[in-house]
Amino acid sequence: MLKEMLDNIRKTSPLIQNITNYVTANDCANITLAWGGSPIMSDCEEEAEDMAGICMGLNINMGTLNPRTAGTMLAAGKAYNARKKPVILDPVGVGASGYRRKLAAEFMEELRFTAIKGNVSEIRTLITGTAGSRGVDADLGEAVTEENLEQYVQMAKKFAADTGAVVVVTGAIDIAADPSRAFVIRNGHSAMSRITGCGCMLSSILTACIAANPAKPLEAAAASVAAMGLCGERACRQMEKEHAGNASCRTWLIDGIYNLTGEDLEKGADYELY
Amino acid sequence: MLKEMLDNIRKTSPLIQNITNYVTANDCANITLAWGGSPIMSDCEEEAEDMAGICMGLNINMGTLNPRTAGTMLAAGKAYNARKKPVILDPVGVGASGYRRKLAAEFMEELRFTAIKGNVSEIRTLITGTAGSRGVDADLGEAVTEENLEQYVQMAKKFAADTGAVVVVTGAIDIAADPSRAFVIRNGHSAMSRITGCGCMLSSILTACIAANPAKPLEAAAASVAAMGLCGERACRQMEKEHAGNASCRTWLIDGIYNLTGEDLEKGADYELY
Amino acid sequence: MLKEMLDNIRKTSPLIQNITNYVTANDCANITLAWGGSPIMSDCEEEAEDMAGICMGLNINMGTLNPRTAGTMLAAGKAYNARKKPVILDPVGVGASGYRRKLAAEFMEELRFTAIKGNVSEIRTLITGTAGSRGVDADLGEAVTEENLEQYVQMAKKFAADTGAVVVVTGAIDIAADPSRAFVIRNGHSAMSRITGCGCMLSSILTACIAANPAKPLEAAAASVAAMGLCGERACRQMEKEHAGNASCRTWLIDGIYNLTGEDLEKGADYELY
Repeated sequence: MLKEMLDNIRKTSPLIQNITNYVTANDCANITLAWGGSPIMSDCEEEAEDMAGICMGLNINMGTLNPRTAGTMLAAGKAYNARKKPVILDPVGVGASGYRRKLAAEFMEELRFTAIKGNVSEIRTLITGTAGSRGVDADLGEAVTEENLEQYVQMAKKFAADTGAVVVVTGAIDIAADPSRAFVIRNGHSAMSRITGCGCMLSSILTACIAANPAKPLEAAAASVAAMGLCGERACRQMEKEHAGNASCRTWLIDGIYNLTGEDLEKGADYELY
Repeated sequence: MLKEMLDNIRKTSPLIQNITNYVTANDCANITLAWGGSPIMSDCEEEAEDMAGICMGLNINMGTLNPRTAGTMLAAGKAYNARKKPVILDPVGVGASGYRRKLAAEFMEELRFTAIKGNVSEIRTLITGTAGSRGVDADLGEAVTEENLEQYVQMAKKFAADTGAVVVVTGAIDIAADPSRAFVIRNGHSAMSRITGCGCMLSSILTACIAANPAKPLEAAAASVAAMGLCGERACRQMEKEHAGNASCRTWLIDGIYNLTGEDLEKGADYELY
Repeated sequence: MLKEMLDNIRKTSPLIQNITNYVTANDCANITLAWGGSPIMSDCEEEAEDMAGICMGLNINMGTLNPRTAGTMLAAGKAYNARKKPVILDPVGVGASGYRRKLAAEFMEELRFTAIKGNVSEIRTLITGTAGSRGVDADLGEAVTEENLEQYVQMAKKFAADTGAVVVVTGAIDIAADPSRAFVIRNGHSAMSRITGCGCMLSSILTACIAANPAKPLEAAAASVAAMGLCGERACRQMEKEHAGNASCRTWLIDGIYNLTGEDLEKGADYELY
């Protein structure tokens, strides 16, 4: 089933617009290409309508935003919404400033998202409107664990019901939920937090996967999360084995997505349905 | 002859300003250094005059532009034109939005370019003023092939005559033309399209090469295209051999330019004169 | 002693804000993570106060600045100054334009820096207010050598006394000075100048190191400079041995910081106290 998700990206090569931060834009573009999609990174409001016309999906990533790009995000989101094309939100570091919280609230009010992806802190900030985030990292003690898993699954399902979006909560254990079902995914490796942009890359491939599988956004999200975790753990193990570091690991992660096949993903994905 | 082009870069280490997109700026800077040039990436209009004073060439790359950087491109282009220093245009994704087409038309009207480099779609959009581009990728069916090669060579020569610029058309077969001569270059590898920024990197090294060989812009363009293709095909073959992916391939491509010698380029370049 | 500096980063994982250029932002983020810190790259003035509240230090890097980000730099600098948190200045290419010189003078006037790091040209430009820089590279003939070393050590100590900042002068020989003491550091490799962003990466890890060692900014600066030089020379030697290029070298440099231990740094650092 996950296999089909990936195969559809490779078959259709969806053109995806990423309005993303300048820190990880190159990695997001390369991993989109590795995944089988085709990236456009325009963040210019004057182009929002035209881009919505030619692209198959929009990824809004709030890292390093500013008033200009925030305006583009809103305009682009509306243009994709009007065309019923998928829009994904990655509220990077939303707890880190009142300005980001205010913008995220505005986005949630004005736009319809097909999927929302964040770590526990980010998703909680979206839900409660209050901070508690140590910037772009999840707060300690807020991680999803086997003990509190059920609680986070319910939180994700409820937030999905409230927003109409597939909700992806990332961490040591990942959750992808719609109102009635949740994939609990146990791929990944703790050293992935030492590579900048793993979350950003995930939202990019997630957008491409949903665009290629518009009728199955939950399965597309689960496939993307599992693929990122699977290739991440392989890259991290190679890093440990070769006594390399996070820069090599990032390269191998993207290489891994490039070489990932549907069969490979199907076999390597470690998930349960809740 | 191509050897001399590269040797002159290594001898003079020209300082080059790139006004480029934030997606591939790091790769453009590193490949410029690998090539023997010295990059400055300022995109600030307040610095345009001073940069034109100290740099030897300007690369205008239209990826991820916005009204602020578009203004810088125009101001910088005029400042370099006034000093008779080379200005290169890379109309990235010019077919993707009306805004980019309008700006490109303005640039073509207001500035004199020493070289213009794009894929078939981008060059056609510049010529006709109409779209037809699937964003940053060349439209299917618009590729240069052995069958339509002669037609594209004529198009490039005519566009060169009309603009006074060396015209570089990239694709499976690359063309570099002035009004009377065209290099048809058959280096390169199809997997290069899976690395973001190959086109951007080419325009960066092209600018450095023309700056180092101001009397021979056509030969400088041909040397740059052949070098990129040659190092690209080597990197892609290494990727296939080692079952690596596009991230490693990008690294090897830049490494290849770093180690490319004039002799190596002379021997590996696969071109004919039309 | 240098060992303690690095160990404190790894123990406290300080959250660091980098207002930096879009060319090397990814490398700066990844090397900060490799070094044990946690990076936030926001360059948005609306977030300056909140970021100053949650972060432990601020790195102001003047590469690719524009009026918007220059305003953020000033506002953020004041917000960190008000909280007595360290602010580091990297005046990238300050000699390259009058606009950058004017902004740097304004920053020097309005902000208190815990450390200032630049190459010889950049530091001289800050001191004299006049240019003489070939952009982002140090002018030829202005390099620190064994012959003029004493003179540069005195210059650095005096500039440190005048500004209250630790002054780091980079080059073939590096100097880190406060008003009374100077570390003269002889790690590093000439090929590091062929990798874009070595200086930017240094200011990022320097900021993290000072934030983790607030009572010892000079030792923290020396540890950062020695670490960068040590990992840089190892990466460059590996590049030469494997006939690789600057792209691989950059990866290995960051990997080296990732794997650098306090003991390793203590043993490999090559410095004298002046």
